[in-house]
Amino acid sequence: MTVDASAFLNNVNIDAVGGLVGAIQADPVKAQTTWAAHVTWKGAFASEASIRTFAPVPSDEPAALGGADGAPNPVEQLLAALGNCLAVGYAANATIAGIQLNDLRVDLKGDIDLHVFLGLAEGHAGFESITATVTIDADASPEQLEQLHAKVLASSPVGHTVRNAVPLEVVLA
Amino acid sequence: MTVDASAFLNNVNIDAVGGLVGAIQADPVKAQTTWAAHVTWKGAFASEASIRTFAPVPSDEPAALGGADGAPNPVEQLLAALGNCLAVGYAANATIAGIQLNDLRVDLKGDIDLHVFLGLAEGHAGFESITATVTIDADASPEQLEQLHAKVLASSPVGHTVRNAVPLEVVLA
Repeated sequence: MTVDASAFLNNVNIDAVGGLVGAIQADPVKAQTTWAAHVTWKGAFASEASIRTFAPVPSDEPAALGGADGAPNPVEQLLAALGNCLAVGYAANATIAGIQLNDLRVDLKGDIDLHVFLGLAEGHAGFESITATVTIDADASPEQLEQLHAKVLASSPVGHTVRNAVPLEVVLA
Repeated sequence: MTVDASAFLNNVNIDAVGGLVGAIQADPVKAQTTWAAHVTWKGAFASEASIRTFAPVPSDEPAALGGADGAPNPVEQLLAALGNCLAVGYAANATIAGIQLNDLRVDLKGDIDLHVFLGLAEGHAGFESITATVTIDADASPEQLEQLHAKVLASSPVGHTVRNAVPLEVVLA
């Protein structure tokens, strides 16, 4: 039995990813995944989201928006989800490319015009734009990092959900 | 001095929202807000997001995707953000309409084809579609609830970010 050093690069369990890739190549329907979250209102502008068996994640609004400021608000949570998704993308694709990551940070910001949220206008209530600045310390050339960057942008589930118009159905039970 | 009961309906501090509305009507530039999150990679597929002064929010991937399954993953976090945003929308608009909410739940699910994320195909890596089912127990008629529902859909920042194509710039520092 030999130990493949690449299995431990960036602490990523690349064998698990490889196993999933193989399973999907053998049976493409295995790529079809469904994800879920369950949100419960806690009064005022507070709520919490339950995901699988993890502890509920709290949500609130800043005082200026009428909340008690007990937790990050939903639009901040969306930026966090995007940054976490990009981080996984860099870690996965760097590992596949044999690049050792020493440090990785993603700083995100986005602008929202509150007119629509507050009922003062009709139109787009969401982010007008989002910028993510990625700071990487890695044992790689600038060209390798640019290739890595391109691969991450081409394959980020949250990135593509933001960048594209995704059909959203909200129904009253 | 009189106490306005509506100020406490649903525990919502509707005066704070009204104050912001008035401030924006007097000076529209006050509606321009910028939100931020800062993500740090923690090795493997784990990362955490820092938002203002709140405790960092952890992120990880399930074992089948090569993670240690230590926290909800980024696409689940996006669903949570969407559900929390809808909850705020219902609470705010119900309060404005004078509707007492007794209970509110949002159950979200969305489908992702992993081919693009795993590098097995090019195209859309994000959610193909998302469904949010809203269960409301409120002192309101079905017509009032439908009006409330329409207002929430017309004004949800995370909902509109998902449903529309939002410009996303990801840059290497």
